Amino acid sequence: MTKLLTIAGLGPGDQNMVTPCVQEAISSATDVVGYIPYVARIPPRDGLALHPSDNRVEIERAEFALDMAASGKRVLIVSSGDPGIFAMAAAVFEVLDKNPSRWTDVDIQILPGVTAMLAAAAKIGAPLGHDFCALNLSDNLKPWELIEKRLLLALEADFAMALYNPRSKSRPEGFEKVLTILKNKCSEDRSIVFARAISTPEERIKITTLALAKPEMADMQTIVIIGSSQTKVLSQNGKIFAYTPRHSKFDLSN
Amino acid sequence: MTKLLTIAGLGPGDQNMVTPCVQEAISSATDVVGYIPYVARIPPRDGLALHPSDNRVEIERAEFALDMAASGKRVLIVSSGDPGIFAMAAAVFEVLDKNPSRWTDVDIQILPGVTAMLAAAAKIGAPLGHDFCALNLSDNLKPWELIEKRLLLALEADFAMALYNPRSKSRPEGFEKVLTILKNKCSEDRSIVFARAISTPEERIKITTLALAKPEMADMQTIVIIGSSQTKVLSQNGKIFAYTPRHSKFDLSN
Repeated sequence: MTKLLTIAGLGPGDQNMVTPCVQEAISSATDVVGYIPYVARIPPRDGLALHPSDNRVEIERAEFALDMAASGKRVLIVSSGDPGIFAMAAAVFEVLDKNPSRWTDVDIQILPGVTAMLAAAAKIGAPLGHDFCALNLSDNLKPWELIEKRLLLALEADFAMALYNPRSKSRPEGFEKVLTILKNKCSEDRSIVFARAISTPEERIKITTLALAKPEMADMQTIVIIGSSQTKVLSQNGKIFAYTPRHSKFDLSN
Repeated sequence: MTKLLTIAGLGPGDQNMVTPCVQEAISSATDVVGYIPYVARIPPRDGLALHPSDNRVEIERAEFALDMAASGKRVLIVSSGDPGIFAMAAAVFEVLDKNPSRWTDVDIQILPGVTAMLAAAAKIGAPLGHDFCALNLSDNLKPWELIEKRLLLALEADFAMALYNPRSKSRPEGFEKVLTILKNKCSEDRSIVFARAISTPEERIKITTLALAKPEMADMQTIVIIGSSQTKVLSQNGKIFAYTPRHSKFDLSN
């Protein structure tokens, strides 16, 4: 029998953004593993065991899921958004890489999903319509100095930026530092978007400028999108949108 | 009556990766507009007019779609992947921005999709599992110098990179220059992935190293993913995967 571990992305929250492919994997799973709020999105049914676990236990969760898959169960790890973007897919490979002889006969399948920055960008226009980068602001797994270094280089490259996990309760100071750097380096009318819990009933969107941005506008459910120097804001039929044009001039002074 | 233009992402190619949300927009459209191969993915039916158009006419296509939406038709612009990533959403806002008084009563709705880099990353592991950037290598709309500048800064930041539109028939030399820069700046065992037509019958995947990478491994249907210095390759149950660990050290020599 094929032993299979599937790692799937549930999209940003709206059931209508779960791909049929992922829906099918949910329907055929015997066991669903994941962070508590993501597993809570899976409807209970007979023959399905739900295994929610807390944040910051990604390695243990991956080992647990691999063990179950090796025992012949049809195991599904669920992530919010896409499983390959700051989520569980990398954690599973870290575990496999450290234990090369432990789960040798388990197939790994990854099913992509709509990651938060795409859902946020779609709601507010097209802020990622030109070259961009995605930065995880959590310094649980990397030193803060590296985050600052990447932020400065991304500004120099004039990338639009999607910032994941911008501000947790345990380390609120990081995002404040990021905002200070941005305010020092960019013009004060640079666009910044706070997109919280996109496509859920708690959705909240704020399109503003760096001059008006405050640290407390972000939390862990927020994706922050920083426009490039070319990003523009416009009003269309009473609604505000932000977009980054597809064209760009070369300006060394950027 | 509400006048509405919807811009939707069809995902990478597999019908099972089209979100229900987008499927519903296809079902309720009277007119579908887009680049020829993307419109070809929409099944014909009574009451639906298909308007395929050629590449490089994004502005005209956006104007045409806005005019039809203004006339009361239910118009859907389709992009492959996600409409906000190097696709039609930005083109529509460019047109609106240039003509602020022309289509004032048309609502704009954007429906995200699984963009090519997410589908490619899922197929090969988790190469975008840490900070990364997305670069469009087409110099139709920006000078080549800007592409090189961004490439060098992205290497300095040690981002993984997803390269869109790497190599067209009309400008094959750009990607060759990119490979030369990468080979000069990175160790020769740096991971590089060529992911072509992911999730379609023509899918072709090659995980290799910079030392073995050749320009002709890419075409316009290929997403190229360059690993960061931390990206690793492993074999699992007979299959090769690439992943970028979630953790990273700070190394100024990067």
